[in-house]
Amino acid sequence: MGGVRRNGSETGPGRPRLEMDGPVLGAVIDLITEKGMSAVTIDAVAARAEVSRAAIYRRWPTKHDLLVAAAETRVGEQDVPDRGSFRAELAMLLTARLQVYRMPGTSRLLAGLIGTGAEDEPAPAVYAVYTERITEQTRRIVRRGIARGEVRAEVDVDAVTTLIAAALPFRLVAELRPPDESLVEQVVDLIARAVETP
Amino acid sequence: MGGVRRNGSETGPGRPRLEMDGPVLGAVIDLITEKGMSAVTIDAVAARAEVSRAAIYRRWPTKHDLLVAAAETRVGEQDVPDRGSFRAELAMLLTARLQVYRMPGTSRLLAGLIGTGAEDEPAPAVYAVYTERITEQTRRIVRRGIARGEVRAEVDVDAVTTLIAAALPFRLVAELRPPDESLVEQVVDLIARAVETP
Repeated sequence: MGGVRRNGSETGPGRPRLEMDGPVLGAVIDLITEKGMSAVTIDAVAARAEVSRAAIYRRWPTKHDLLVAAAETRVGEQDVPDRGSFRAELAMLLTARLQVYRMPGTSRLLAGLIGTGAEDEPAPAVYAVYTERITEQTRRIVRRGIARGEVRAEVDVDAVTTLIAAALPFRLVAELRPPDESLVEQVVDLIARAVETP
Repeated sequence: MGGVRRNGSETGPGRPRLEMDGPVLGAVIDLITEKGMSAVTIDAVAARAEVSRAAIYRRWPTKHDLLVAAAETRVGEQDVPDRGSFRAELAMLLTARLQVYRMPGTSRLLAGLIGTGAEDEPAPAVYAVYTERITEQTRRIVRRGIARGEVRAEVDVDAVTTLIAAALPFRLVAELRPPDESLVEQVVDLIARAVETP
């Protein structure tokens, strides 16, 4: 739900949803970047984006929904075309992720999402679905590698996907160091060695 | 510093620190497990552990310090003896981690730590130092593998450590699925293939 781009022609009560998304989600990210997660209240977001609280609640029923939608404007679905090479596609994916992980505010946004994601239902469901969505491209890259015979057919796609997806955000929010090109190169090389056919 | 076990003979004002640690950190974990991170206030912890607020503040100046110390009672320094095999030691480490990741409350505790860790100084320093401390055994296992000639000498120990450390917690707090033995087996096999000498 939150963060899925609606068709521009779809209008509910008040402003069209698409028109409201940019200012509201931008306000969420600005507040997090400047002041931290505790500054993200529906009141503060509404004031900064110049929309009503009611409009925000209609679109994003909980603060967690709002955070997931904001996160998706940074770390969203990523399209990596078939490049004919598992290594090349993995490098492309992680380099694109690196850019957004290094933007101001991304660290607090992801950390806040993780923090609120562990609290009560139904928030976890929304967050888990988001994670599933943003790791889908990784699964596709692994499967394409298998189809080409580059990647061993017996690899556990789910485990490989977790391993690929985890490194950069862990560096960012648990080691509290910015991931860099060197980490991306290392992860690409290590994962490729781990999965490639002999 | 939060979580570092003091010598039992060391006593400050009031109760010896070691004696207070168990009830206070147990209270933190109970509150998180039962009610979530928002229930962890110094007042609630003091009441539950039957110690004064002042005693808690003297030992752990911020809520973040307290969370780090509580996390360290779960995910702490891990001693893996030399088993003569990189795979065996990695499996031992991750199996031990798996046990604590699956305990009730660990998910919320780690997620809350990540959430508060992204907020203002000096909390991140405390958290980064904790992460460094709990990943030290992983670095040692990789270095022992290099010394034995099992692991390629040119691997980037820092990157490999991040890759090893990230998978289980990412599964837990970002994918919101409990890590299991199968994930541990897969990670051990993938990492070993990634780093082993040909």
